[in-house]
Amino acid sequence: MYRNGEVSEDEAAGALEGLRIEVLDGMARIDAGRSVRCGMPEVVLAEGKEPEAFAEIMLAQVKAAGRCVATRLSPEHLDALRARLPPDVRMEHREAARAVILSTGDEPVPPRGGTVAILTAGTSDIPVAEEARLIAEEMGCEVRTAYDVGVAGIHRLFSALKDLIPADVFIVAAGREGTLPAIVAGLVDRPVIGVPVSTGYGYMGGGEAALASMLQSCSVLAVVNIDAGFTAGAFAAQVAHGGRRE
Amino acid sequence: MYRNGEVSEDEAAGALEGLRIEVLDGMARIDAGRSVRCGMPEVVLAEGKEPEAFAEIMLAQVKAAGRCVATRLSPEHLDALRARLPPDVRMEHREAARAVILSTGDEPVPPRGGTVAILTAGTSDIPVAEEARLIAEEMGCEVRTAYDVGVAGIHRLFSALKDLIPADVFIVAAGREGTLPAIVAGLVDRPVIGVPVSTGYGYMGGGEAALASMLQSCSVLAVVNIDAGFTAGAFAAQVAHGGRRE
Amino acid sequence: MYRNGEVSEDEAAGALEGLRIEVLDGMARIDAGRSVRCGMPEVVLAEGKEPEAFAEIMLAQVKAAGRCVATRLSPEHLDALRARLPPDVRMEHREAARAVILSTGDEPVPPRGGTVAILTAGTSDIPVAEEARLIAEEMGCEVRTAYDVGVAGIHRLFSALKDLIPADVFIVAAGREGTLPAIVAGLVDRPVIGVPVSTGYGYMGGGEAALASMLQSCSVLAVVNIDAGFTAGAFAAQVAHGGRRE
Amino acid sequence: MYRNGEVSEDEAAGALEGLRIEVLDGMARIDAGRSVRCGMPEVVLAEGKEPEAFAEIMLAQVKAAGRCVATRLSPEHLDALRARLPPDVRMEHREAARAVILSTGDEPVPPRGGTVAILTAGTSDIPVAEEARLIAEEMGCEVRTAYDVGVAGIHRLFSALKDLIPADVFIVAAGREGTLPAIVAGLVDRPVIGVPVSTGYGYMGGGEAALASMLQSCSVLAVVNIDAGFTAGAFAAQVAHGGRRE
Amino acid sequence: MYRNGEVSEDEAAGALEGLRIEVLDGMARIDAGRSVRCGMPEVVLAEGKEPEAFAEIMLAQVKAAGRCVATRLSPEHLDALRARLPPDVRMEHREAARAVILSTGDEPVPPRGGTVAILTAGTSDIPVAEEARLIAEEMGCEVRTAYDVGVAGIHRLFSALKDLIPADVFIVAAGREGTLPAIVAGLVDRPVIGVPVSTGYGYMGGGEAALASMLQSCSVLAVVNIDAGFTAGAFAAQVAHGGRRE
Amino acid sequence: MYRNGEVSEDEAAGALEGLRIEVLDGMARIDAGRSVRCGMPEVVLAEGKEPEAFAEIMLAQVKAAGRCVATRLSPEHLDALRARLPPDVRMEHREAARAVILSTGDEPVPPRGGTVAILTAGTSDIPVAEEARLIAEEMGCEVRTAYDVGVAGIHRLFSALKDLIPADVFIVAAGREGTLPAIVAGLVDRPVIGVPVSTGYGYMGGGEAALASMLQSCSVLAVVNIDAGFTAGAFAAQVAHGGRRE
Amino acid sequence: MYRNGEVSEDEAAGALEGLRIEVLDGMARIDAGRSVRCGMPEVVLAEGKEPEAFAEIMLAQVKAAGRCVATRLSPEHLDALRARLPPDVRMEHREAARAVILSTGDEPVPPRGGTVAILTAGTSDIPVAEEARLIAEEMGCEVRTAYDVGVAGIHRLFSALKDLIPADVFIVAAGREGTLPAIVAGLVDRPVIGVPVSTGYGYMGGGEAALASMLQSCSVLAVVNIDAGFTAGAFAAQVAHGGRRE
Amino acid sequence: MYRNGEVSEDEAAGALEGLRIEVLDGMARIDAGRSVRCGMPEVVLAEGKEPEAFAEIMLAQVKAAGRCVATRLSPEHLDALRARLPPDVRMEHREAARAVILSTGDEPVPPRGGTVAILTAGTSDIPVAEEARLIAEEMGCEVRTAYDVGVAGIHRLFSALKDLIPADVFIVAAGREGTLPAIVAGLVDRPVIGVPVSTGYGYMGGGEAALASMLQSCSVLAVVNIDAGFTAGAFAAQVAHGGRRE
Repeated sequence: MYRNGEVSEDEAAGALEGLRIEVLDGMARIDAGRSVRCGMPEVVLAEGKEPEAFAEIMLAQVKAAGRCVATRLSPEHLDALRARLPPDVRMEHREAARAVILSTGDEPVPPRGGTVAILTAGTSDIPVAEEARLIAEEMGCEVRTAYDVGVAGIHRLFSALKDLIPADVFIVAAGREGTLPAIVAGLVDRPVIGVPVSTGYGYMGGGEAALASMLQSCSVLAVVNIDAGFTAGAFAAQVAHGGRRE
Repeated sequence: MYRNGEVSEDEAAGALEGLRIEVLDGMARIDAGRSVRCGMPEVVLAEGKEPEAFAEIMLAQVKAAGRCVATRLSPEHLDALRARLPPDVRMEHREAARAVILSTGDEPVPPRGGTVAILTAGTSDIPVAEEARLIAEEMGCEVRTAYDVGVAGIHRLFSALKDLIPADVFIVAAGREGTLPAIVAGLVDRPVIGVPVSTGYGYMGGGEAALASMLQSCSVLAVVNIDAGFTAGAFAAQVAHGGRRE
Repeated sequence: MYRNGEVSEDEAAGALEGLRIEVLDGMARIDAGRSVRCGMPEVVLAEGKEPEAFAEIMLAQVKAAGRCVATRLSPEHLDALRARLPPDVRMEHREAARAVILSTGDEPVPPRGGTVAILTAGTSDIPVAEEARLIAEEMGCEVRTAYDVGVAGIHRLFSALKDLIPADVFIVAAGREGTLPAIVAGLVDRPVIGVPVSTGYGYMGGGEAALASMLQSCSVLAVVNIDAGFTAGAFAAQVAHGGRRE
Repeated sequence: MYRNGEVSEDEAAGALEGLRIEVLDGMARIDAGRSVRCGMPEVVLAEGKEPEAFAEIMLAQVKAAGRCVATRLSPEHLDALRARLPPDVRMEHREAARAVILSTGDEPVPPRGGTVAILTAGTSDIPVAEEARLIAEEMGCEVRTAYDVGVAGIHRLFSALKDLIPADVFIVAAGREGTLPAIVAGLVDRPVIGVPVSTGYGYMGGGEAALASMLQSCSVLAVVNIDAGFTAGAFAAQVAHGGRRE
Repeated sequence: MYRNGEVSEDEAAGALEGLRIEVLDGMARIDAGRSVRCGMPEVVLAEGKEPEAFAEIMLAQVKAAGRCVATRLSPEHLDALRARLPPDVRMEHREAARAVILSTGDEPVPPRGGTVAILTAGTSDIPVAEEARLIAEEMGCEVRTAYDVGVAGIHRLFSALKDLIPADVFIVAAGREGTLPAIVAGLVDRPVIGVPVSTGYGYMGGGEAALASMLQSCSVLAVVNIDAGFTAGAFAAQVAHGGRRE
Repeated sequence: MYRNGEVSEDEAAGALEGLRIEVLDGMARIDAGRSVRCGMPEVVLAEGKEPEAFAEIMLAQVKAAGRCVATRLSPEHLDALRARLPPDVRMEHREAARAVILSTGDEPVPPRGGTVAILTAGTSDIPVAEEARLIAEEMGCEVRTAYDVGVAGIHRLFSALKDLIPADVFIVAAGREGTLPAIVAGLVDRPVIGVPVSTGYGYMGGGEAALASMLQSCSVLAVVNIDAGFTAGAFAAQVAHGGRRE
Repeated sequence: MYRNGEVSEDEAAGALEGLRIEVLDGMARIDAGRSVRCGMPEVVLAEGKEPEAFAEIMLAQVKAAGRCVATRLSPEHLDALRARLPPDVRMEHREAARAVILSTGDEPVPPRGGTVAILTAGTSDIPVAEEARLIAEEMGCEVRTAYDVGVAGIHRLFSALKDLIPADVFIVAAGREGTLPAIVAGLVDRPVIGVPVSTGYGYMGGGEAALASMLQSCSVLAVVNIDAGFTAGAFAAQVAHGGRRE
Repeated sequence: MYRNGEVSEDEAAGALEGLRIEVLDGMARIDAGRSVRCGMPEVVLAEGKEPEAFAEIMLAQVKAAGRCVATRLSPEHLDALRARLPPDVRMEHREAARAVILSTGDEPVPPRGGTVAILTAGTSDIPVAEEARLIAEEMGCEVRTAYDVGVAGIHRLFSALKDLIPADVFIVAAGREGTLPAIVAGLVDRPVIGVPVSTGYGYMGGGEAALASMLQSCSVLAVVNIDAGFTAGAFAAQVAHGGRRE
């Protein structure tokens, strides 16, 4: 660039500054359209945030967007939110999903079409599944669930699958060895998303064995991070919207 | 089970044997329908198989199913296959995908609808992307690609995305830090599948950093195993079929 | 499958649905016989379950099966269980095994034959060993134990082995470097199952060093997961039943 | 020990020396009986040994014990052995198991009773399975096998299980996600030994995912090291001998 | 050394002792100049220290050096410090940085020139960023910050960068997938230091994914340890001093 | 977003498409200025690229940019490049750095000011250091080196440091325990960049121990990936340019 | 062994039993001399033991051996011990070492000769160092210490070394990057034992980086487990006894 | 430092430069005495060095020091050395240790007293043991060895120990589970150094299981890096010299 020597260093530096500012101005205008582009609800991860700071972020979001979801709440997060809740903001607590929904209006989420099926191997996997359900519903999908169908016996899996088969996409949450997603993927012809859950113990018991098993599976599976109910729900909703976009 | 003492051990053992056989008989009839259910092509992973054994498996498969794909071939696998190829089996070598397709007839794969977009960050990610493309095409999807759009400059990404946006689903293959899938997921509202590629070096350079980065992403992404072009292609095809099933 | 073009997509989709439902119906009938087939007691892992949910699961199980075991109980689990215990359910608390047994009748577990020997290297390994013992006893085996024979001096090991040698199978629980199982396997001609215990500290001190050492052993050993007393006990009982099946 | 001060340091040192020698003399007499105690064949791991040194070890072993097995041979090991083979030593090459058996006599291994069933998920797992078979046969067991029953379709598994069910113990070798052992363990009431095989790729593809999955399994499984056909075969033979000892 | 045999062992040993003492004397004089050489403030890591011991170390340091900083304080550390604070020592508590500054005089830190820009991807990364800011300010730099510019939308990043671009060096703190530093490094021509933050969850969620991603980045980045605000701040100050040394 | 129901789905979808295209158009114009902004030379990583494809990429780059560098070349890469080299492209082979420089003109890289000092602990670290040197020189810096000053004795380090001290920034490459960067950082008051090198053996011997040691260092160090000579050189050049920008 | 068929199975089994018992009898007599042979004090690791069980083990040990040490005590362990302490047992609490010594008599440990030097890099490493000191003193060695000589400045190291140089062996405890042991090993000609301490944070901050760094060191070092003050002290005492055995 | 404002920046900078130079001058004089201080032979690690560069380093070393050792030689290293060997340099090739010794004179290494015992578990551990032996002999110690005493039967261990017991220190090399060092440490009262060897396979089979097992051992052991024969030999020689220093 400076190689031809025709531009002095000062000139080059000045030009660079100019270019950079212009670039940044251009780009700043772009991102405003992001939430429209990607169709995601506003979701705040409570875990790791100070309760007060968390509550303020939530209230700012609901003012701006009319509706806002928080996941992985501790009781302290919930208390901080309750203490600050203005009268015109509605709060819905989804205990099983460790989540809350704030909204300024009464309208439900408008349906966008598409059905998401969610299964869990055991009862310990249910909070992660419920987080996925909440997100998929917030994105306008119908959700059907069948929980504890891995541990309680494979006959429950099959009777459950009969009800779920019309779904557009399957989320399967499983801890320990994490094989239920692969079994489901071998029985249905729709996309199956595996969610490893941190419910094992001992060697790679924090969900790593389940993650590894799903990644190595001979079945066709896509996976998300350990305990990542939010990502699974949002990805599944994107898939489920598929046939309804046109 | 033996607890009530009403059944002698011998009786119980006999009953068990009977039950088990009956169960197995029932189950054996079930699996025959599997390939119909899941809509996958027959795919053989050449890597790790003796060339001769590999060639025999392939020929048996093509006889049984009319069409058969092999991935991750070494030159030795290819030679063994060529040496044994009967005159009535057609062999198509896809070098960029390190794959071959055997078939007994001339009909192309019938289109099942749906479009899959495949992007790569760099040129080293192309073989994995080509493996994904081959599988998606074998499953009846249209595939559009844009390779080397991460390293060569983000402007190539954007001009590429304009062409690809009508796609039903995106596959994004990336090595090293593996951030391209998250960037794409922030710009499109369709499902994005990240494929970590083993093209880095140093710390976690065998694709592990890319895998971890994709799993941790704040964007909505699902991932497959490192270098798992086959899984990405088949999963994407399942997603792309979505709107065309009814 | 769709390749020959002779079946329209609609026909194929309809056939698929039919096949799938039929398959599932067939399979659902199968699993009912599972607990009979495998001869396992009903065991609930308390760890990671909400105390109330845990108590409800236990009571449902004991109603259905007449007898039910829970392992890895916290005091909260125990309290929740006690608070809900109906008068017709007997509860036996095995403190050393961190376990309880619920039963609706008074009959003891009927003996199925076979003797399991259980050894531990140190005193910290005893809870895991006691969990194994409980399961083996629930499966109708006689159990003999020799605890703390690794740390307290090898002479205790040898005098213990003299008492234990008639056993059909040996379980050896050990933490830190986990070498006791290999030593026992070098002295007896019966199967030896190593159980790594999470009682070390520092580098790989959570049982990983013991697991690795047992897996690498030149002695003939099979291993179970770190702290997996349940699996060791159930596997050993299966081995011990061996000679008594006919 | 030196604490009471009644023994001078010199006296103590002298006593120690004496005690130690006496101890060692006593112990040396003990180990001679080891191979009798544990009932193992003499097995040499060729891998990692210089071909010449390997051949010499083998010939020394067969002279001393009449029969000797070597596993994991390279062609170089085989050549070195052939070049040195005396006329009175018989060599049997088991190619599928990457093994040889040397013997000085013609008698076959005397049967000790017991049947071992060996299954593999795919064709790549066969060498490990064959190593296990060889060892179990060398220990006097009958062996029945069913290979490639995981990948080629679950119906093959069930028809295979019907033939194998009378076995005393099952060895199941599987790579990638390694779930076949758990499936088998859910269907039979005999002990099942999982052998993780290094046939995957990508994240934990060297058998680690299979190992983790087997250790985390909700089914009752014991496992051996990755690719450890020898250990699986010997352990299974010990189990199979069980009912025939009395 | 002893090889020529001309020096007796005793002589050699004596000479060695002498040499060693002399060497040590020489070296002891050297280190006194260290803090002058490296231009670092005195910083004490509170984490892992007993509160009382910590307080004593701090007071000794401030007496000796006139000014002293402590990072990663718990409330207990703070209490212990407050309880022992002599009237002539001023204590400034920087809550956001989990830090305190003790000083014996009133003079502010003299400016040494240079500007450090600090960005964070999310709000959870702010404590680490504030620790970096404190250190850079203690080293005489001007600091400008832009927090939460990754999660809240890329348009905030660009408007922030316009304000920060005159800075001499950039610190970018990010958790989860840790990609913000690479994005910044692609937009500015000044050195960018990535700080991985332990704010993720699941697989490599303790900052390891962010660390790996930054190390593998195709952008030009240098990194410091996970959560290492101190190191980032001090390194950045060294860079920022650069143009002002002459 | 669709929540107020005032926009029909079709309208929303249409608007989205429009927005997206517009956004992409805007962004595409931006990136063209990237290489100007960041002041990096064009560098191609040969490792992992097919020799022919590599050569074509290089020639395309040199045509476009006038000058182009490739690192980590194998002899095959070099041969492929030589075979395709047009007469008007000059090729300079830097063997010690495993690199080549292609250029279309004769002008040397114009100096941009700033001095980079590069040290290595041992001789095995030199190729990585030479890669760093090449990049820093390509970016217009003066480079001074002192190699093998860690292993050969600390007196060589000190005499080397005396020559290097006027440098603006230090790169220190070290394998095994990787402590030389921390020692240098304790002796100079300029920024020190540690480069872990994969020259150890045994436990974490592929550079991981050196990386961990540098990240944990109490000295103020920033690090780059294992063997990442390119990144170290480019980052150091950015630092060195610092004082010369105004 | 059973191969020649000359011994019936029954005979063989009987002989085996006999041999085994005899072996065990012989071995049981051997171990009684172990503590005499190895010269170790009786040491109980409190960590991971129930306070009551711990107290009972301690009291049994002190009765049997006259003197007994416990390390890694929590306040609960201490309380349990105090509550059960009989009047004729003396208890000495070494707070800095997190240890207690129980004894039934008044005699101090008789000196066995030898001097152990113990250094720490920082103040956080002192508890581990104190544990090592306690053990070495219990084994009759003189111990000299120099703490906090790494962080507080290398001049403190050198003045400390002058006092410590007559020692027979050096223990050096260090956390984070763990380089002090290598520095000491480069300055003294006596054996140096590195003890990694779990006082870092971030990547491999639990002592793993220090362990790796010590194992990779170019200096001649032997290491013990992370935080293993006991092992370091006992090993050092064995070395220090060296010259006094004759 | 600059805090009191009494020194201008220029003055301070000048003073710093002066101080630094003076410091470095002082330090440079110190290191010349290093090899005398530490009593190590000059040892060059051939692995990872270019054969030609390696040969030149060796010849420079032998000229300077009269004697020089190289370990881990490939045939290429050996050839390069032979091709350049001047007539006045003697070369001794120790094949079992993969080492050579160059010397300019005929005198053997003068004995410094002390005996080192070296044991190996198997035959694959011998090269590492021989490397240790070579170094200990070069440092003037007598060495006694007992190889293959772990795998071939524990009776060989005990008869071997009887011969080795007068040794001052024991080196025990073992791969796979690495338990032989702990067994030896339980039988002798002299220091035992464990050397993990990379001779296993499967999970942590590259020596990591052996390393972990030795670090976790309840016996008193110090360890060195995987395959680190050099370090073990040099450390053992330092211990063995102990009683002969006075």
